[in-house]
Amino acid sequence: MVVEHPEKTKKLMPKLLAFMDEHVYPAESVYAAQLDEERWRVPPIMETLKAKAKAAGLWNLFLPDDKLALGLTNLEYAPLCEVMGRVPFAPEVFNCNAPDTGNMELLWHYADDAQKKQWLTPLLAGEIRSAFCMTEPDVASSDATNVETSITRDGDDYVINGRKWWITNAAHPDCTIFIVMGKTDPTAARHQQQSQILVPRDTPGVTIVRKLSLFGFDDAPHGHCELLFENVRVPATNLILGEGRGFEIAQGRLGPGRIHHCMRQIGVAERALETMCRRVTSRVAFGKPLAEQGAIRQQIAQSRIEIEQARLLVLKTAWMIDKVGAKEARSEIAMIKVSVPMMTQNILDRAMQVHGAGGFSEDYGLSYAWAWARALRMADGPDEVHAEGIAKRELRKYSNQSS
Amino acid sequence: MVVEHPEKTKKLMPKLLAFMDEHVYPAESVYAAQLDEERWRVPPIMETLKAKAKAAGLWNLFLPDDKLALGLTNLEYAPLCEVMGRVPFAPEVFNCNAPDTGNMELLWHYADDAQKKQWLTPLLAGEIRSAFCMTEPDVASSDATNVETSITRDGDDYVINGRKWWITNAAHPDCTIFIVMGKTDPTAARHQQQSQILVPRDTPGVTIVRKLSLFGFDDAPHGHCELLFENVRVPATNLILGEGRGFEIAQGRLGPGRIHHCMRQIGVAERALETMCRRVTSRVAFGKPLAEQGAIRQQIAQSRIEIEQARLLVLKTAWMIDKVGAKEARSEIAMIKVSVPMMTQNILDRAMQVHGAGGFSEDYGLSYAWAWARALRMADGPDEVHAEGIAKRELRKYSNQSS
Amino acid sequence: MVVEHPEKTKKLMPKLLAFMDEHVYPAESVYAAQLDEERWRVPPIMETLKAKAKAAGLWNLFLPDDKLALGLTNLEYAPLCEVMGRVPFAPEVFNCNAPDTGNMELLWHYADDAQKKQWLTPLLAGEIRSAFCMTEPDVASSDATNVETSITRDGDDYVINGRKWWITNAAHPDCTIFIVMGKTDPTAARHQQQSQILVPRDTPGVTIVRKLSLFGFDDAPHGHCELLFENVRVPATNLILGEGRGFEIAQGRLGPGRIHHCMRQIGVAERALETMCRRVTSRVAFGKPLAEQGAIRQQIAQSRIEIEQARLLVLKTAWMIDKVGAKEARSEIAMIKVSVPMMTQNILDRAMQVHGAGGFSEDYGLSYAWAWARALRMADGPDEVHAEGIAKRELRKYSNQSS
Amino acid sequence: MVVEHPEKTKKLMPKLLAFMDEHVYPAESVYAAQLDEERWRVPPIMETLKAKAKAAGLWNLFLPDDKLALGLTNLEYAPLCEVMGRVPFAPEVFNCNAPDTGNMELLWHYADDAQKKQWLTPLLAGEIRSAFCMTEPDVASSDATNVETSITRDGDDYVINGRKWWITNAAHPDCTIFIVMGKTDPTAARHQQQSQILVPRDTPGVTIVRKLSLFGFDDAPHGHCELLFENVRVPATNLILGEGRGFEIAQGRLGPGRIHHCMRQIGVAERALETMCRRVTSRVAFGKPLAEQGAIRQQIAQSRIEIEQARLLVLKTAWMIDKVGAKEARSEIAMIKVSVPMMTQNILDRAMQVHGAGGFSEDYGLSYAWAWARALRMADGPDEVHAEGIAKRELRKYSNQSS
Repeated sequence: MVVEHPEKTKKLMPKLLAFMDEHVYPAESVYAAQLDEERWRVPPIMETLKAKAKAAGLWNLFLPDDKLALGLTNLEYAPLCEVMGRVPFAPEVFNCNAPDTGNMELLWHYADDAQKKQWLTPLLAGEIRSAFCMTEPDVASSDATNVETSITRDGDDYVINGRKWWITNAAHPDCTIFIVMGKTDPTAARHQQQSQILVPRDTPGVTIVRKLSLFGFDDAPHGHCELLFENVRVPATNLILGEGRGFEIAQGRLGPGRIHHCMRQIGVAERALETMCRRVTSRVAFGKPLAEQGAIRQQIAQSRIEIEQARLLVLKTAWMIDKVGAKEARSEIAMIKVSVPMMTQNILDRAMQVHGAGGFSEDYGLSYAWAWARALRMADGPDEVHAEGIAKRELRKYSNQSS
Repeated sequence: MVVEHPEKTKKLMPKLLAFMDEHVYPAESVYAAQLDEERWRVPPIMETLKAKAKAAGLWNLFLPDDKLALGLTNLEYAPLCEVMGRVPFAPEVFNCNAPDTGNMELLWHYADDAQKKQWLTPLLAGEIRSAFCMTEPDVASSDATNVETSITRDGDDYVINGRKWWITNAAHPDCTIFIVMGKTDPTAARHQQQSQILVPRDTPGVTIVRKLSLFGFDDAPHGHCELLFENVRVPATNLILGEGRGFEIAQGRLGPGRIHHCMRQIGVAERALETMCRRVTSRVAFGKPLAEQGAIRQQIAQSRIEIEQARLLVLKTAWMIDKVGAKEARSEIAMIKVSVPMMTQNILDRAMQVHGAGGFSEDYGLSYAWAWARALRMADGPDEVHAEGIAKRELRKYSNQSS
Repeated sequence: MVVEHPEKTKKLMPKLLAFMDEHVYPAESVYAAQLDEERWRVPPIMETLKAKAKAAGLWNLFLPDDKLALGLTNLEYAPLCEVMGRVPFAPEVFNCNAPDTGNMELLWHYADDAQKKQWLTPLLAGEIRSAFCMTEPDVASSDATNVETSITRDGDDYVINGRKWWITNAAHPDCTIFIVMGKTDPTAARHQQQSQILVPRDTPGVTIVRKLSLFGFDDAPHGHCELLFENVRVPATNLILGEGRGFEIAQGRLGPGRIHHCMRQIGVAERALETMCRRVTSRVAFGKPLAEQGAIRQQIAQSRIEIEQARLLVLKTAWMIDKVGAKEARSEIAMIKVSVPMMTQNILDRAMQVHGAGGFSEDYGLSYAWAWARALRMADGPDEVHAEGIAKRELRKYSNQSS
Repeated sequence: MVVEHPEKTKKLMPKLLAFMDEHVYPAESVYAAQLDEERWRVPPIMETLKAKAKAAGLWNLFLPDDKLALGLTNLEYAPLCEVMGRVPFAPEVFNCNAPDTGNMELLWHYADDAQKKQWLTPLLAGEIRSAFCMTEPDVASSDATNVETSITRDGDDYVINGRKWWITNAAHPDCTIFIVMGKTDPTAARHQQQSQILVPRDTPGVTIVRKLSLFGFDDAPHGHCELLFENVRVPATNLILGEGRGFEIAQGRLGPGRIHHCMRQIGVAERALETMCRRVTSRVAFGKPLAEQGAIRQQIAQSRIEIEQARLLVLKTAWMIDKVGAKEARSEIAMIKVSVPMMTQNILDRAMQVHGAGGFSEDYGLSYAWAWARALRMADGPDEVHAEGIAKRELRKYSNQSS
């Protein structure tokens, strides 16, 4: 085991760190103020930052394609992604934000040339945003085969009917394209019933029913929307990869998506611990700094340990995906999915507690980060489902033994 | 030990339960809709419900005064308070909501007749609302001696200067009176520096700087406000009890306030478990109801155990306050303060998890209840401070032993 | 809810406390030394103490029969049982020790007069000891219907064949009688296959295969034995209650047995906390007493809270058994079974940690108490099985709802 | 980060695994039986196994010296050490067992040539055993400056007086040498008061007062002893490194010692999980294998995650010690010290629980392994002390910030 960063990462890291210091951290208060002024608009500073990032060569770092991007492996990207994760809006600055990254990877892998030209190109340029429409309110969507939205062939078109919710980005002003998962053939074999199809947001029949809040956060300007698709008609050429390939595409999309979330969560956790340490070294209660209270010191040590362990497991997972592919690494992916957001959530909880009531407000960013970490224990399937998969593969080693 | 409800409670409970079924639960969606329409207005249904509660004799149940109210002891009130806790706005329906109850108790105990007539009477009638202004952003307010707001005598007036935050109710349209804690004499002995004074909200110099949010929730129409007091002048007769009595009043107010919060939290936890059970018996994933998954069943059992234990400790604490007073019961009060909201938070977390992403939204009330439970681990001082007090009293038993 | 002790308890408690102070605590080192001298003999001081307890009227307090004993209810007995639990060998001093108490209750409930005269009388007199033989190594005995030992009618006798383990008391020098559970009719309905029968230890065919250790403790002079029954022949009159009644008897025995264990565990936890507090107030590390370390103080507070909650739930359960019977109280019994030994174990773990390596040795009694608490999470069925039962009954409330 | 084993490890691993399969696992029951026969003798099979290991070139793998041993780095040794950790007596087979390894490293680093010749040579040959005498019953030995044993110069000798306990190996039949830490100058600066000195076990005045047990386990034939040193006289040449260097030597010894313990604990945890999985796939309760119970599956997943994270942190720590030295890696060493035995303990607890009462007995090795893991949370200082050190270094990053 060698713990050092790969060479490419070593080169990019100082540039990224400098960019964060020079441009991103100072922009945090600006971004918040602009958002407060008008919530469902992209804060103008975002486009300024994106232009600077592009100019600095810090753009599309997530994509392992050395023509379209820098061609970083997961392992090379991971430490950079962690740094971006320290500020909620930072990944977007570098065009590395979810769910767009997952959608871009999906299109890069599975879309045909015409689809790529129409949607991947402007996404990679950061000109438009996208949404991935899988989760439905009426079924347990952790089992992807449950989706009930119908995608029905009608002449040269497909017609889509169904209800989706928790569709992140759908309310973003620049979001122009939805990737929708539904069933083209409910009578086919269980994993061949689903397909994925491109639906421009302005297609007639697409309605944003409401914006859901996460705890009390509306997550503007991206939003988590409930959507209704009523007789939504798109050309048959909008289908991705072919009928019945939807489940396969979903699997391919979710693996790397999970690891990106976890990389960013390490950054969230690091910043939470930093925020906690700064607070306790400066705040006095009952005659001494909080930092001198033994119980708080034990929490700081525990947090440091948890971060170190989590980061190493994320890096190992990245290394495995690069080496043997996401399918062979699915236990590792599940392990970080189950353990990393829980870790982040716990550290954020401790950080909030030392901030007094202010910790729950918008003033320190902790409560928002907590809500996201909590939500990630559900996103892409609840922890319990992933743990089940880990157990299944662990137990399989012993399945042939006699009793 | 006898676990049965006291006689008075046995008589009131069926009436309260019937009222909840007939009027309160059906009003939940109405209240939410009216609030969505206009956030900083009292939803009209509230006054309707209050009138009905008054008519039903379910009014001011919290006050242990048999002229002004029903004269229930803490032990008699506790099970009723629990039931009210099942719906966030229900306590207000019965004029039993925080922080007004604490403020009414404070006035009942410590105010003079003129003060009572002016403020306690309309509060007991549910005509006005009130706020208690103690916490300050710049100091660790868990140590009440830290407050820095100044209350300075000037002729027949007092002049108040300072900044407060997390002042619940301050934005409520009917909130007309603030009880403000500050220092009248920074040179006095440590616990005699503070005083409490009545400040009408419309006094010149009082500014609502902003409404803070709690995990994104604005808590309309009550709000948690940051307030600025700039040369706020009120008559000297507004001082409560006398100069230097502020700390004493604060102690007297917080004890019962904490137990009321905990009683309500038991109701919150019961409803969360009920919501969880209803969900898992009706939701199917991977071919069977969630209720048949062993891990979820273990959580349900664990939740039931935690509720039972917490309720018993709350009841014991109520019994002790009635019997020996809040001061002698301060370890018990601290114990429920530390353990009950944590318990509620954990059960809510489990309940959210079985609801999928919807659990984090406004649809089930779970995320809002969670945010409140989390905040209660900080309100009236962080858990750690109360635990410290418990430990101090526990260790005192052994302090004279030789080493 | 009234928390005070019942009248009978109030009268007995001072006598018991005085007896503990005067006779039992001073005997702890003596008992240990005598046991070290010769492990599988009853330390002589035990008989001395038993005689004194009998003389003091502190004898057979567990039995709710006012002719044969003091006729205490479970609620009346609970606080006394707790006090006895503070010293591992104390219950035996008062003839209130497991498994003999459970066996005496069983005989009192289900045995016929001849059986009572032969076995219950000397047991109540403390002249003999007994063992209850249910658990078997080859089957999951948490499901009592699994027992495989056969009890076969042969003329006027029954013949027993089978293997049992974890049979506490079986190695005790005074243990003369075993109550054995087995199957008389493997073809009967599932809960009517089992019977219970009295087997004198010296019956030919009974072999103590080995003494098992609990962690490294041999639990002398009682022992936990693996037993072999090979063609063990006893008169048919030794059968208790009748063929096919074994499961019913087992259920009747285990309920009260569990609550007695839990009552004692509260005493164990109290003493552990006391031991912890004494240690931390006297032990200095890094320049100050351990008692001044914040993390330890948080643990002490947490322990106090956990004990209070656990005791109240045990008392409620006792009250319910008295009022509605063990069957109706089975959720409560399961709740204390699941939560109380876990609580004790956690407090003991904290107590050990502040004792340094000594905490794991025989010097403070903590490691032995820990091993017992841990074992109780398995005894009478693993926690998970009891939690399952709690969940089943909780979910039943919602089972008729439509989805 | 690269996760693969280093080249040297890749070569040795198959040999070690084969040796374990061929010789060590089959010897487990033999070793136990021989020990049962006579506890304070080295089971004869041990010498047989040692000879085989030596012949196989699997000897002294721990020592980073390529003349005296194979010269493995910590990173190269770690995975091999893990494998040895799977069987309690296996490290001794390869002469890689604590505390001898720590003692050999100490002599290798700090002893002079004569001392090395007399003691290191036979230790490396596996001919004798050794003990390290630091912990004292009367002081908190987690603070090494607390030791009170005196080492007083008298002519050409030193005279030692004091009491030590938890001295592992001291009862081993082949243990001939003690390294004793004490004070040569109580008036010197705090970290220069201590010295370390070689004391042959048979020196007059050395008494084994008693053998302590660890949760009832006597740990024969090594034992954990309480020792009395009364006017024990040894030549001045037995002093290691020089007067006042004792603290420095202790620090140098403990770092690598801790990582070796942690490496072995990973092996313990892996085997516990394996034992758990084998059990649950073969044991049926309530009509289905335990492996199909959801709660157990969640535990298996959780255990797998915890092992992976812990192993990675151990490997990172090994890598850091190799790269920057134990002093610079002391936060990492503290992190594994705090987290790894706790992890092992938790997994063992789950493994015990699925084994029923048998899990607590000697039959599966789980309870003994648990006791050791628990003890390691105290050995070389309690977890809390190490956590404190981690916190101190974490907070130091922020110590210069203004408030």
